[in-house]
Amino acid sequence: MGPHPAVAAIRLAVRRVLHDVLNDHFAQDRQGSPLVLVACSGGADSMALASALAFEAPKLGVRAGGVTIDHGLQDGSDLRATEVALRLRALRLDPVETVAVQVGRGGGPEAAARDARYAALDATAERLGAAAVLLGHTRDDQAETVLLGLARGSGTRSLSGMAATTGRDGRYRRPFLDVDRQTARKACLIQSLPVWDDPHNTDPAYTRSRLRHEGLPALEKALGKGVVEALARTAQLSRDDADALDAWAADAEGTVLDESGGLDIAALFALPPAVRRRVLRRAVIGAGSPAGSLFARHIEEVDRLITAWRGQGAINLPGRVGVRRQGGRLVIRQG
Amino acid sequence: MGPHPAVAAIRLAVRRVLHDVLNDHFAQDRQGSPLVLVACSGGADSMALASALAFEAPKLGVRAGGVTIDHGLQDGSDLRATEVALRLRALRLDPVETVAVQVGRGGGPEAAARDARYAALDATAERLGAAAVLLGHTRDDQAETVLLGLARGSGTRSLSGMAATTGRDGRYRRPFLDVDRQTARKACLIQSLPVWDDPHNTDPAYTRSRLRHEGLPALEKALGKGVVEALARTAQLSRDDADALDAWAADAEGTVLDESGGLDIAALFALPPAVRRRVLRRAVIGAGSPAGSLFARHIEEVDRLITAWRGQGAINLPGRVGVRRQGGRLVIRQG
Repeated sequence: MGPHPAVAAIRLAVRRVLHDVLNDHFAQDRQGSPLVLVACSGGADSMALASALAFEAPKLGVRAGGVTIDHGLQDGSDLRATEVALRLRALRLDPVETVAVQVGRGGGPEAAARDARYAALDATAERLGAAAVLLGHTRDDQAETVLLGLARGSGTRSLSGMAATTGRDGRYRRPFLDVDRQTARKACLIQSLPVWDDPHNTDPAYTRSRLRHEGLPALEKALGKGVVEALARTAQLSRDDADALDAWAADAEGTVLDESGGLDIAALFALPPAVRRRVLRRAVIGAGSPAGSLFARHIEEVDRLITAWRGQGAINLPGRVGVRRQGGRLVIRQG
Repeated sequence: MGPHPAVAAIRLAVRRVLHDVLNDHFAQDRQGSPLVLVACSGGADSMALASALAFEAPKLGVRAGGVTIDHGLQDGSDLRATEVALRLRALRLDPVETVAVQVGRGGGPEAAARDARYAALDATAERLGAAAVLLGHTRDDQAETVLLGLARGSGTRSLSGMAATTGRDGRYRRPFLDVDRQTARKACLIQSLPVWDDPHNTDPAYTRSRLRHEGLPALEKALGKGVVEALARTAQLSRDDADALDAWAADAEGTVLDESGGLDIAALFALPPAVRRRVLRRAVIGAGSPAGSLFARHIEEVDRLITAWRGQGAINLPGRVGVRRQGGRLVIRQG
């Protein structure tokens, strides 16, 4: 008799990713057996991931370790981290590390905790020479991320959710992006793995928590049960579309640049609006405007120098970047 | 003293569209004064639209008329239509027509009513020689349409909502896509226009009604008040992105087609996935597969003939279209 379907599903998801990691390892002519770490909070998703990694890695000649981050945001979080590390060792992961981080305040509590966490994971992966770090994000997390992007209203790229592979050399991998949260929970239950429910996950002070417990259920009630799957599929399609359009814009940039570094208005005008706006955004960022402060309305204003010219003056953008139309050219300069 | 801001907002929105209609009219060397109809259900959105049309049209030398559709779905709907027509005439619209339609059963009750409505509007516009028909969809309707598209999970095009201009020769115009429902309601109140609340709009049997009264409010609670605006902006950005990618695919189709009407595998492989899948979709529809029955998973299966070739057999698609890989070519044929 095979394993329970939930356990089979999480193992298959991890096996696929380990195959990719091994392929990369061999393609790069690396010696020995690669080390793969699981980033584990002790919650159901990452405990399920740790259990699947512990099961699959030895069969493929991959070394499996774990790391748990103590964010220091709650009393007893250090004890919690020690407990999670013990559980990971009980799964026979080795090495297992706990890393305490200082969470700053930049960009709100969720962003600050995330920044501190990834910095610590990066450092740990470097120090241990890990080939990959597995993250436990599920299809439900992906759906929530798409809705958060939708709320920004900034287009296709912001709807593309989390990538299956990110970070330097594709270090971070998300094997569970097609696995739902319920399956991960079930797999823990079946394997008698104790899991910890992070109180932040149900704290309505957090946008993601409100989305998870109120927003998404209400959408499912209105639109039907397939919403999470539809959102996850939207993420993938949007990512591919945004990649293609970015590639087109990168290409087009070369054709609109004139000798003196200005952009040719006639050439810009001939591009589809979606491509033209991306070219403009690239050029403005290239001139020194910080991407994070540059919104769609800024680029639309620049676009009107091309499509609705009526003698406007220079447009001032974040990072002291100015754009003006001069004859048949757009001149973009920091100053 | 100028009009109330809500009344000013609806009039400005209509004035802009009437300018566009007049530009088209003159560009086509048409004689006389163009006729613009408002499609009016008697609800707040379309009554506000009718009032703004009645106010703006005479100032621009545009003739303004109205049409109301009796769907025959409720007892007394004929009386209701007569009432709405009286109200439109009271606004000095002329001509005003009521048209009774037979709603079929195809595609669910909402789709069937929509099909019957547009067929009647088309016929009326033809008969009266109208240059344009104004529709009262607001930014809130647009947000709901984006969420309905999101639930289909079929990508950027399905997120692009309703176009500001559609139909043959751009007949249908939606002046209120940037106006929120609250503003339209307020404008009716200020102008003492009686409005009729369609009971369908609050009937939880309708997906759109559930979305309006439960789904969207819950999303706003989780994500903040800007959600409707963000969804409307997503619609516009997605439409532009989808248009650009469709143009690329149309262009690429020419470069991958070989002499015998097959598609060249190597050329397909070199395209970004988002473009390649659109080329494949076009080719399959071109071979006779009905667009409405062709889902993303079908195209992904065809794509695997290119990206994950391991000797698969022919793939059968809706409309008896078969796709197989033959040497370095993809052969797509109905039969």
